[in-house]
Amino acid sequence: MGRLVMKFGGTSVANIERIQNVARHVKREVDAGHDVAVVVSAMAGKTNELVAWCRDASPMHDAREYDAVVASGEQVTSGLLAIALQALGIQARSWQGWQLPIKTSDAHASARILDIDGGEIVKRFADRNEVAVIAGFQGINPGTGRITTLGRGGSDTSAVAIAAAIKADRCDIYTDVDGVYTTDPRVVPRARRLDRIAFEDMLELASQGAKVLQVRSVELGMVHNMPIFVRSSFDKPEDIDPHASQPPGTLICGEEEIMESHVVTGIAFSKDEAQISVRHIEDKPGVAAAIFGPLAAANINVDMIVQNVSEDGKTTDLTFTVPASDFDRALETITDARDRIGYKRLDSATDVAKVSVIGSGMRSHAGVAAQAFRALSEKSINIRAITTSEIKFSVLIDAAYTELAVRTLHSLYELDKG
Amino acid sequence: MGRLVMKFGGTSVANIERIQNVARHVKREVDAGHDVAVVVSAMAGKTNELVAWCRDASPMHDAREYDAVVASGEQVTSGLLAIALQALGIQARSWQGWQLPIKTSDAHASARILDIDGGEIVKRFADRNEVAVIAGFQGINPGTGRITTLGRGGSDTSAVAIAAAIKADRCDIYTDVDGVYTTDPRVVPRARRLDRIAFEDMLELASQGAKVLQVRSVELGMVHNMPIFVRSSFDKPEDIDPHASQPPGTLICGEEEIMESHVVTGIAFSKDEAQISVRHIEDKPGVAAAIFGPLAAANINVDMIVQNVSEDGKTTDLTFTVPASDFDRALETITDARDRIGYKRLDSATDVAKVSVIGSGMRSHAGVAAQAFRALSEKSINIRAITTSEIKFSVLIDAAYTELAVRTLHSLYELDKG
Repeated sequence: MGRLVMKFGGTSVANIERIQNVARHVKREVDAGHDVAVVVSAMAGKTNELVAWCRDASPMHDAREYDAVVASGEQVTSGLLAIALQALGIQARSWQGWQLPIKTSDAHASARILDIDGGEIVKRFADRNEVAVIAGFQGINPGTGRITTLGRGGSDTSAVAIAAAIKADRCDIYTDVDGVYTTDPRVVPRARRLDRIAFEDMLELASQGAKVLQVRSVELGMVHNMPIFVRSSFDKPEDIDPHASQPPGTLICGEEEIMESHVVTGIAFSKDEAQISVRHIEDKPGVAAAIFGPLAAANINVDMIVQNVSEDGKTTDLTFTVPASDFDRALETITDARDRIGYKRLDSATDVAKVSVIGSGMRSHAGVAAQAFRALSEKSINIRAITTSEIKFSVLIDAAYTELAVRTLHSLYELDKG
Repeated sequence: MGRLVMKFGGTSVANIERIQNVARHVKREVDAGHDVAVVVSAMAGKTNELVAWCRDASPMHDAREYDAVVASGEQVTSGLLAIALQALGIQARSWQGWQLPIKTSDAHASARILDIDGGEIVKRFADRNEVAVIAGFQGINPGTGRITTLGRGGSDTSAVAIAAAIKADRCDIYTDVDGVYTTDPRVVPRARRLDRIAFEDMLELASQGAKVLQVRSVELGMVHNMPIFVRSSFDKPEDIDPHASQPPGTLICGEEEIMESHVVTGIAFSKDEAQISVRHIEDKPGVAAAIFGPLAAANINVDMIVQNVSEDGKTTDLTFTVPASDFDRALETITDARDRIGYKRLDSATDVAKVSVIGSGMRSHAGVAAQAFRALSEKSINIRAITTSEIKFSVLIDAAYTELAVRTLHSLYELDKG
């Protein structure tokens, strides 16, 4: 007997049949004796439709009205799931963000959750054994009384925040994949689903392009030490044993919960990268600012930044990467700023990829990166640039070698072995 | 300079282009110096879709969850219209039922409005010249904090109630017809649009099958003496002169506002009628109850009831009508109750129609009905039954004669003359 939050995304509630399937998942947990709060997204495609209507009504629309419009998608699914649960004989009640309330900042369309009042939900667990079905992605700004939304993918964050508010034992995220993998199984067929992964590693994996969870939800889980369990919503509810020690899926949890951890947890990669190298700039204070100031002003997201110690103490080279879609604008920005930066030459490449090796175990193991450089060199893969952090290192390589590099590293760190 | 409520139905907000057209209608009134509150329905077809989803999720669904689901339709249009208004440079803000709030009873799916707080809206008229865009059809039950809806067509009622709450000068209902006609123009091409009609007459017309307005909205208008102006949403906003003494449409108002009133205002008819005559029943107390009790228990709506004074003081006949769709069930119900009622014979007919002549002027004019009976008889139309009220009389005739009867009466009372 415990307390659970179950979150279902848009694909899982795309139509009435799937909503009824979700209801059976919930019933399974209720029957096993758990108190359950469910968080739902809008039906797949609905949010896109509503966003498009706002844009059609006016390209420069008021974010407050945008929020009122798009929050309606989750309202529909929360009511429908409550109905489907009642049809299975389960007490259930829907809750909109303003009803609990879920208080947020007033940053409309990308609000942050400030506080959630879970009191009524917990009271109803005790009094009526009632399941709470909560509209994800939304809240209310207490100052204005206006509906707010958390930004795309925000329902994951809603779920983890609610789990923290009601002191749940776990937050289950049902999604269209059955967990977090050591790398993309489409590239490495032997990629293995991780039983457990530390919050820190998941944060790096998520921001490095593994699209399983919204990054903010993982941050929130880490802050509140709320275990998040990623599992498939397509499993038949009837096939799952709620008493199994761990059903198929990946538990994202504190490092201390992970007994036998590999040094490396996973390999992430991103092909949509472009590289710009600024050659022979003066090695003096203010040069980096002269480069990245204009890029920030142009709202271009810079990812890797590599600058070597200069040989002669006078000039150096600086390399950075940007999303391929921003490459032309970035090049133009740097060219326009040439006088202020004072570089001799620009080199650039758009056919590059970033491969990242992630693992909090690296903190206590030396030589992890060195192994990678050797293995890549043996496959004649040239490394253009390297960046490292405490639990991750990334290499920039020619895009054509991406799959080979990922497979090489996946084997190197024995990620295909359980 | 006045204060206006403008209500737009589902056809008027069916897509973004039409919502932008609505915005131009609103702009016209704002530019003319009026304070404006707009009430919107859901996009045409949306409510039906949402209702179908609830039914698919569970045929016996919880009305509270049904309300949460279907109220989302108006939420979408209110936000989109606010966006479209802002794009025209007009200050605008959307309001859901729970935000004002519009307090209602807890009769979910058919709630009654108890109280509307229009204070914030009026304040914003003064402070910011801001248009309020209000989601129709919905409110909140103050006891439970749950979303309620008013039942189909409820946005008309929302509009009139809001007009009363903010002490508007008029409530404009934009619809897909350009006003109230003396009768159905498809039957009588010379039917004339009424410039004005009294609340009482409109109530009779509305309940007799003229589908222009929800009956409750007219009742509410009568109680608060709030003039309701029915007009077309398909007129181009640019073609309308906001300063014209009366644009095309029909004003529903108090009798005292109508200068030259005809004795008869309009002719309504309904073909979906069935007649049942119960022959030779005892003329004693309790017989009517024995007939209509079982019909009410079977949830069958009885319309006309005619019972003659019996000739011999012993037995009499009783005739009543029911909707054609309920005919079989009604007949079965009466047959089952034969022993309790104690009748000799049942006669029935399904090919009958009811034609009603409506006009509050009848109160002060004798012989209005007599003229009708003579005119119908001259056309060899047999009258099966007659009922009368203070401002209306109805005749039951063979359905085949409906159009002939309507045209005959329309000419008789000179309704085609302005």
